Amino acid sequence: MSSEDSDQQQIRDVIATWLKASADHDLDTVLGLMTEDAVFLRPGCPPMQGRAAYADASQSMAGKVKIEGQPDIQEIHISGNHAYVWNYLRMTITPLPDGSPKKSEGPILTVFRKDPDGRWRLFRDANMLTSSPTA
Amino acid sequence: MSSEDSDQQQIRDVIATWLKASADHDLDTVLGLMTEDAVFLRPGCPPMQGRAAYADASQSMAGKVKIEGQPDIQEIHISGNHAYVWNYLRMTITPLPDGSPKKSEGPILTVFRKDPDGRWRLFRDANMLTSSPTA
Repeated sequence: MSSEDSDQQQIRDVIATWLKASADHDLDTVLGLMTEDAVFLRPGCPPMQGRAAYADASQSMAGKVKIEGQPDIQEIHISGNHAYVWNYLRMTITPLPDGSPKKSEGPILTVFRKDPDGRWRLFRDANMLTSSPTA
Repeated sequence: MSSEDSDQQQIRDVIATWLKASADHDLDTVLGLMTEDAVFLRPGCPPMQGRAAYADASQSMAGKVKIEGQPDIQEIHISGNHAYVWNYLRMTITPLPDGSPKKSEGPILTVFRKDPDGRWRLFRDANMLTSSPTA
Protein backbone atom coordinates (compact mmCIF):
# COMPACT_ATOMS: atom_id res chain seq x y z
CA MET A 1 0.00 0.00 0.00
CA SER A 2 1.45 3.41 -0.92
CA SER A 3 1.92 6.07 1.74
CA GLU A 4 -0.95 8.07 0.19
CA ASP A 5 -3.22 5.00 0.25
CA SER A 6 -2.22 4.32 3.84
CA ASP A 7 -3.00 7.91 4.88
CA GLN A 8 -6.35 7.76 3.08
CA GLN A 9 -7.22 4.54 4.90
CA GLN A 10 -6.20 6.01 8.25
CA ILE A 11 -8.49 8.99 7.65
CA ARG A 12 -11.37 6.67 6.70
CA ASP A 13 -10.71 4.78 9.92
CA VAL A 14 -10.81 8.01 11.96
CA ILE A 15 -14.22 8.86 10.47
CA ALA A 16 -15.60 5.34 11.08
CA THR A 17 -14.21 5.24 14.62
CA TRP A 18 -15.63 8.71 15.36
CA LEU A 19 -19.14 7.65 14.30
CA LYS A 20 -18.99 4.35 16.21
CA ALA A 21 -17.66 6.06 19.34
CA SER A 22 -20.38 8.74 19.08
CA ALA A 23 -23.00 5.97 18.85
CA ASP A 24 -21.43 4.31 21.92
CA HIS A 25 -21.24 7.64 23.85
CA ASP A 26 -17.50 7.02 24.13
CA LEU A 27 -16.53 10.67 24.43
CA ASP A 28 -12.88 10.02 25.33
CA THR A 29 -12.35 8.20 22.03
CA VAL A 30 -13.98 11.00 20.04
CA LEU A 31 -11.87 13.65 21.80
CA GLY A 32 -8.72 11.69 20.91
CA LEU A 33 -9.67 11.90 17.22
CA MET A 34 -9.65 15.72 17.15
CA THR A 35 -6.83 18.20 17.68
CA GLU A 36 -6.81 20.13 20.95
CA ASP A 37 -7.74 23.28 19.01
CA ALA A 38 -10.32 21.73 16.65
CA VAL A 39 -12.94 24.13 15.27
CA PHE A 40 -16.49 23.14 14.31
CA LEU A 41 -18.41 25.49 12.00
CA ARG A 42 -22.15 25.35 11.34
CA PRO A 43 -24.66 27.70 9.74
CA GLY A 44 -26.30 30.10 12.18
CA CYS A 45 -24.09 29.19 15.14
CA PRO A 46 -20.94 30.67 16.62
CA PRO A 47 -17.89 28.44 16.04
CA MET A 48 -17.33 25.69 18.59
CA GLN A 49 -13.63 25.77 19.41
CA GLY A 50 -11.53 23.19 21.20
CA ARG A 51 -11.90 19.77 22.80
CA ALA A 52 -13.33 21.21 26.02
CA ALA A 53 -16.20 22.95 24.23
CA TYR A 54 -16.96 19.76 22.28
CA ALA A 55 -16.92 17.72 25.50
CA ASP A 56 -19.32 20.17 27.22
CA ALA A 57 -21.76 19.98 24.30
CA SER A 58 -21.57 16.17 24.15
CA GLN A 59 -21.99 15.66 27.89
CA SER A 60 -25.21 17.69 27.84
CA MET A 61 -26.62 15.06 25.41
CA ALA A 62 -25.28 11.96 27.22
CA GLY A 63 -27.95 9.38 27.95
CA LYS A 64 -30.65 11.47 26.27
CA VAL A 65 -30.27 10.42 22.64
CA LYS A 66 -29.19 7.59 20.40
CA ILE A 67 -26.87 8.79 17.64
CA GLU A 68 -26.37 6.98 14.32
CA GLY A 69 -24.27 8.33 11.45
CA GLN A 70 -23.70 6.94 7.96
CA PRO A 71 -20.86 8.55 5.97
CA ASP A 72 -20.56 8.57 2.20
CA ILE A 73 -17.05 9.88 1.50
CA GLN A 74 -16.89 11.77 -1.80
CA GLU A 75 -13.16 12.45 -1.83
CA ILE A 76 -10.06 12.59 0.32
CA HIS A 77 -7.22 14.84 -0.72
CA ILE A 78 -3.88 14.81 1.10
CA SER A 79 -1.31 17.62 0.87
CA GLY A 80 1.64 17.47 3.24
CA ASN A 81 0.50 16.90 6.82
CA HIS A 82 -3.03 18.14 6.11
CA ALA A 83 -5.93 16.57 4.26
CA TYR A 84 -9.38 17.68 3.38
CA VAL A 85 -12.36 15.36 3.10
CA TRP A 86 -15.63 16.02 1.32
CA ASN A 87 -18.20 13.76 2.94
CA TYR A 88 -21.96 13.31 2.71
CA LEU A 89 -23.34 12.37 6.11
CA ARG A 90 -26.73 10.97 7.10
CA MET A 91 -27.50 11.26 10.82
CA THR A 92 -30.36 9.89 12.90
CA ILE A 93 -30.80 11.26 16.42
CA THR A 94 -33.42 9.42 18.48
CA PRO A 95 -34.46 10.78 21.90
CA LEU A 96 -34.29 8.06 24.58
CA PRO A 97 -36.06 5.96 25.65
CA ASP A 98 -38.57 5.97 22.79
CA GLY A 99 -38.72 9.34 20.96
CA SER A 100 -39.22 9.90 17.25
CA PRO A 101 -36.03 9.68 15.18
CA LYS A 102 -34.87 12.98 13.70
CA LYS A 103 -33.00 12.53 10.43
CA SER A 104 -30.59 15.03 8.94
CA GLU A 105 -28.19 14.88 6.04
CA GLY A 106 -25.84 16.96 3.97
CA PRO A 107 -22.28 17.69 3.00
CA ILE A 108 -19.38 18.11 5.39
CA LEU A 109 -16.01 19.59 4.44
CA THR A 110 -13.36 18.62 6.98
CA VAL A 111 -9.66 19.40 7.32
CA PHE A 112 -7.59 16.72 9.04
CA ARG A 113 -4.06 17.17 10.40
CA LYS A 114 -1.36 14.52 10.79
CA ASP A 115 0.20 15.13 14.19
CA PRO A 116 3.83 14.42 15.18
CA ASP A 117 2.68 11.07 16.63
CA GLY A 118 1.71 10.05 13.06
CA ARG A 119 -2.03 10.04 13.75
CA TRP A 120 -4.59 11.94 11.70
CA ARG A 121 -7.00 14.09 13.70
CA LEU A 122 -9.93 16.32 12.80
CA PHE A 123 -8.76 19.95 12.71
CA ARG A 124 -11.49 22.07 11.05
CA ASP A 125 -15.04 20.95 10.23
CA ALA A 126 -17.76 22.65 8.17
CA ASN A 127 -21.08 20.93 8.87
CA MET A 128 -23.86 21.65 6.37
CA LEU A 129 -26.43 19.07 7.49
CA THR A 130 -30.10 20.01 7.29
CA SER A 131 -33.28 18.12 8.23
CA SER A 132 -33.95 15.32 5.77
CA PRO A 133 -37.03 15.67 3.59
CA THR A 134 -39.83 13.60 5.13
CA ALA A 135 -40.94 10.64 3.05
CA MET B 1 8.51 38.48 2.83
CA SER B 2 8.74 34.72 3.43
CA SER B 3 7.28 32.27 0.93
CA GLU B 4 4.51 31.45 3.43
CA ASP B 5 3.73 35.17 3.89
CA SER B 6 3.73 35.64 0.13
CA ASP B 7 1.32 32.71 -0.37
CA GLN B 8 -0.95 34.04 2.38
CA GLN B 9 -1.00 37.48 0.73
CA GLN B 10 -1.76 35.94 -2.68
CA ILE B 11 -4.73 34.07 -1.19
CA ARG B 12 -6.00 37.26 0.48
CA ASP B 13 -5.70 38.96 -2.91
CA VAL B 14 -7.70 36.17 -4.60
CA ILE B 15 -10.51 36.63 -2.06
CA ALA B 16 -10.51 40.44 -2.43
CA THR B 17 -10.38 40.23 -6.23
CA TRP B 18 -13.20 37.65 -6.25
CA LEU B 19 -15.49 39.91 -4.21
CA LYS B 20 -14.66 43.02 -6.27
CA ALA B 21 -15.18 41.14 -9.55
CA SER B 22 -18.49 39.75 -8.27
CA ALA B 23 -19.60 43.29 -7.42
CA ASP B 24 -18.56 44.40 -10.92
CA HIS B 25 -20.31 41.39 -12.58
CA ASP B 26 -16.92 40.52 -14.07
CA LEU B 27 -17.62 36.80 -14.42
CA ASP B 28 -14.48 36.03 -16.47
CA THR B 29 -12.27 37.27 -13.65
CA VAL B 30 -14.16 35.21 -11.06
CA LEU B 31 -13.94 32.08 -13.22
CA GLY B 32 -10.16 32.57 -13.51
CA LEU B 33 -9.90 32.51 -9.70
CA MET B 34 -11.35 28.99 -9.38
CA THR B 35 -10.06 25.64 -10.60
CA GLU B 36 -11.82 24.07 -13.58
CA ASP B 37 -13.25 21.41 -11.23
CA ALA B 38 -14.12 23.70 -8.29
CA VAL B 39 -16.90 22.44 -6.02
CA PHE B 40 -19.27 24.67 -4.04
CA LEU B 41 -21.13 23.12 -1.10
CA ARG B 42 -24.11 24.67 0.71
CA PRO B 43 -26.68 23.39 3.18
CA GLY B 44 -29.80 21.99 1.55
CA CYS B 45 -28.49 22.15 -2.03
CA PRO B 46 -26.80 19.66 -4.32
CA PRO B 47 -23.11 20.46 -4.89
CA MET B 48 -22.35 22.93 -7.66
CA GLN B 49 -19.43 21.46 -9.60
CA GLY B 50 -17.17 23.11 -12.13
CA ARG B 51 -16.67 26.50 -13.74
CA ALA B 52 -19.48 25.97 -16.25
CA ALA B 53 -22.09 25.39 -13.52
CA TYR B 54 -20.86 28.48 -11.66
CA ALA B 55 -21.06 30.54 -14.86
CA ASP B 56 -24.62 29.37 -15.55
CA ALA B 57 -25.74 30.30 -12.02
CA SER B 58 -24.04 33.71 -12.20
CA GLN B 59 -25.38 34.58 -15.62
CA SER B 60 -28.94 33.98 -14.42
CA MET B 61 -28.36 36.79 -11.86
CA ALA B 62 -26.56 39.22 -14.20
CA GLY B 63 -28.10 42.68 -14.24
CA LYS B 64 -30.70 41.71 -11.65
CA VAL B 65 -28.83 42.30 -8.40
CA LYS B 66 -26.08 44.34 -6.80
CA ILE B 67 -23.66 42.14 -4.85
CA GLU B 68 -21.49 43.38 -2.00
CA GLY B 69 -19.29 41.14 0.16
CA GLN B 70 -17.15 41.95 3.19
CA PRO B 71 -14.70 39.22 4.27
CA ASP B 72 -13.25 38.83 7.75
CA ILE B 73 -10.53 36.21 7.38
CA GLN B 74 -10.08 34.19 10.58
CA GLU B 75 -7.11 32.10 9.48
CA ILE B 76 -5.17 30.89 6.47
CA HIS B 77 -3.27 27.64 6.72
CA ILE B 78 -0.96 26.47 3.93
CA SER B 79 0.24 22.88 3.51
CA GLY B 80 2.11 22.03 0.33
CA ASN B 81 0.22 23.25 -2.73
CA HIS B 82 -3.10 23.45 -0.86
CA ALA B 83 -4.41 25.91 1.69
CA TYR B 84 -7.55 26.17 3.71
CA VAL B 85 -9.13 29.44 4.76
CA TRP B 86 -11.65 30.00 7.52
CA ASN B 87 -13.48 33.19 6.64
CA TYR B 88 -16.49 35.06 8.01
CA LEU B 89 -18.37 36.69 5.18
CA ARG B 90 -21.07 39.37 5.23
CA MET B 91 -23.02 39.66 1.97
CA THR B 92 -25.62 42.17 0.81
CA ILE B 93 -27.65 41.33 -2.29
CA THR B 94 -29.82 44.18 -3.55
CA PRO B 95 -32.35 43.58 -6.35
CA LEU B 96 -31.99 46.17 -9.13
CA PRO B 97 -33.01 48.85 -9.74
CA ASP B 98 -34.28 49.65 -6.23
CA GLY B 99 -35.17 46.52 -4.23
CA SER B 100 -34.65 45.94 -0.52
CA PRO B 101 -31.15 44.75 0.42
CA LYS B 102 -30.99 41.17 1.69
CA LYS B 103 -28.15 40.63 4.16
CA SER B 104 -26.59 37.29 4.96
CA GLU B 105 -23.53 36.31 6.94
CA GLY B 106 -21.67 33.32 8.29
CA PRO B 107 -18.57 31.19 8.13
CA ILE B 108 -16.97 29.82 4.98
CA LEU B 109 -14.35 27.08 4.91
CA THR B 110 -12.47 27.10 1.61
CA VAL B 111 -9.70 24.96 0.16
CA PHE B 112 -7.39 26.74 -2.29
CA ARG B 113 -4.96 25.03 -4.65
CA LYS B 114 -1.71 26.42 -6.04
CA ASP B 115 -1.68 25.48 -9.72
CA PRO B 116 1.43 24.77 -11.85
CA ASP B 117 1.30 28.41 -13.08
CA GLY B 118 1.99 29.49 -9.47
CA ARG B 119 -1.47 31.01 -8.95
CA TRP B 120 -3.78 30.11 -6.08
CA ARG B 121 -7.34 29.22 -7.06
CA LEU B 122 -10.46 28.25 -5.14
CA PHE B 123 -10.85 24.47 -5.19
CA ARG B 124 -13.51 23.48 -2.60
CA ASP B 125 -15.88 25.83 -0.78
CA ALA B 126 -18.24 25.21 2.13
CA ASN B 127 -20.66 28.15 2.40
CA MET B 128 -22.56 28.40 5.71
CA LEU B 129 -24.12 31.85 5.29
CA THR B 130 -27.60 32.42 6.70
CA SER B 131 -29.89 35.46 6.69
CA SER B 132 -28.58 38.14 9.03
CA PRO B 133 -30.70 38.88 12.10
CA THR B 134 -32.78 41.99 11.40
CA ALA B 135 -31.92 45.00 13.55
